[in-house]
Amino acid sequence: MLDTKPFSELVDLIRSETDRHLWKMDLPDEPSYLYEPIHFALKGKGKRLRPVLVHLSGRGFDADPGDLMHAGMAVELMHNFTLIHDDIMDNDDTRHSQPTIHKQFGINEAILAGDSIFALAQLMIGQVNSFAAFQAFNKASLSVCEGQAFDLEYENDTQITLDQYLNMIGKKTGELLSLCAELGAILGNQDEMVRNEMRNYGMNLGKAFQVQDDILEIFSDVEQMGKSLGSDIAAGKQTILTILAKKHDGWDQIETINEDISFKLKQMRVFFIETGIKKRAEEMTNNFIQKAKSSLLILKNDHRNILNQFTEHVLNRTY
Amino acid sequence: MLDTKPFSELVDLIRSETDRHLWKMDLPDEPSYLYEPIHFALKGKGKRLRPVLVHLSGRGFDADPGDLMHAGMAVELMHNFTLIHDDIMDNDDTRHSQPTIHKQFGINEAILAGDSIFALAQLMIGQVNSFAAFQAFNKASLSVCEGQAFDLEYENDTQITLDQYLNMIGKKTGELLSLCAELGAILGNQDEMVRNEMRNYGMNLGKAFQVQDDILEIFSDVEQMGKSLGSDIAAGKQTILTILAKKHDGWDQIETINEDISFKLKQMRVFFIETGIKKRAEEMTNNFIQKAKSSLLILKNDHRNILNQFTEHVLNRTY
Repeated sequence: MLDTKPFSELVDLIRSETDRHLWKMDLPDEPSYLYEPIHFALKGKGKRLRPVLVHLSGRGFDADPGDLMHAGMAVELMHNFTLIHDDIMDNDDTRHSQPTIHKQFGINEAILAGDSIFALAQLMIGQVNSFAAFQAFNKASLSVCEGQAFDLEYENDTQITLDQYLNMIGKKTGELLSLCAELGAILGNQDEMVRNEMRNYGMNLGKAFQVQDDILEIFSDVEQMGKSLGSDIAAGKQTILTILAKKHDGWDQIETINEDISFKLKQMRVFFIETGIKKRAEEMTNNFIQKAKSSLLILKNDHRNILNQFTEHVLNRTY
Repeated sequence: MLDTKPFSELVDLIRSETDRHLWKMDLPDEPSYLYEPIHFALKGKGKRLRPVLVHLSGRGFDADPGDLMHAGMAVELMHNFTLIHDDIMDNDDTRHSQPTIHKQFGINEAILAGDSIFALAQLMIGQVNSFAAFQAFNKASLSVCEGQAFDLEYENDTQITLDQYLNMIGKKTGELLSLCAELGAILGNQDEMVRNEMRNYGMNLGKAFQVQDDILEIFSDVEQMGKSLGSDIAAGKQTILTILAKKHDGWDQIETINEDISFKLKQMRVFFIETGIKKRAEEMTNNFIQKAKSSLLILKNDHRNILNQFTEHVLNRTY
């Protein structure tokens, strides 16, 4: 039935069903110290890309729709947990055009809301009676923490190499999309070879997404991005653009601007365009997309087509 | 074989085996930003009371020793995760006579170490192939978060009732010991009735433990306690002593002392003794212990005896 719908309607349906299930979760009201921030976080305007990927991956393998819903919600909850804690660590003020949890409620509330959402995620993945799904889920959880740790460790370290950067974004962003694609295969009882290709698809899609995110952080407008721009720069974060910029003359002078972030941002934009760094980063994005798509060649036509459309959907954000 | 050992040797053996398994966990070195704090936390001088309870509960039900080791480690990891995050929220400087993780490494490092230890706990409980164990584990995780939220919500709220306080410590401290006792029953394939009694045992033991902890926080010396004394007072935490003190004349004056915590502590000690509040709190501890012990009546003699000894062991700490 779902297959007859155009792609965008299908995505909207999965998203709205995921929202509906998340919002009707049987959560108590008390302690309000905990559940108010949790409700606030779960009502946020996330795109639910990860549950959508779980469903689109799993449907083609004839996985049980109920299992896919539980797995998708579990991943979305885990993703929300990491966002809440990352926003504390990165001191970010806004997320999806709303105040971050720690800005709205306080740091202690945000730590605890994140912890509890992670516990809720566990209860949710537990609803899927699959040891393989559970293992994959928690290995990915740990990898995401490692990715965030590398990200923080690398702050203001100008010696970071491209390989280190790619390993970091693989863990921080790739592992979770990799998990989503793999969960569909696990719940559809696919063999190790298919699971691996689905993992590769998600990993390369995640890397494409993150490299693109680094570009958008510098080149998009604040209204489009829905989060505070320039925060990566202010925090001294390593991004694909700063990594590629190192070997170019003139980067030293821009890198040491600290007093005026808005001025620094403008200087960076000009520099990244004139040196061709922006173009190189865009090419890297495209390479990762091609790699991702090549993993889908093992799939049947319909399944591959829909995941190719998803790939475009993820990358064609204007912000 | 273990049964022929005196109780204290048995406890020492379980503790040292738990430590050995925790320390030989296959953890990477990188990112050191994450794994250094994790190693530091797991090397801490915890008493491993919770894994000991899992083993002592489960052995009498002939549970598989390997399952008990995994479950005990999972609970200990989860406990460590909550301690690390609680210490941030409560701004505590020392734990087991060592600096807390956020004091030693920083708040971001501590948030992330806690998150990762929770993920490791999940991978560990996943080693026990039991959906019931997994569900109990994560329901307890969520309850512990709720307990901590109540604790923070109640800070400086002088209207909190005895019932609210008991509900709070039940979640914060009771649920985890309840889980430990129940895990032994689950892994020993016991029916719902036995599981319930074991839960009740752990819950009442936990409440006894927490009421006693509140008393020790005021009446023990800092060297014995191994953590910063008076921090509950400074934070305006609700304790059994402050709850019972409310109806007594003269408490208002003591409660409003804010400038000198050491002076306030001395005034409190005298007040709690002279009004008989300390004695009443000690009687409550004993009542919870009796309730805990009565739940053990369904057990065979040997099993009951060893858990009665464990009960004494937990409460007979001098600090």
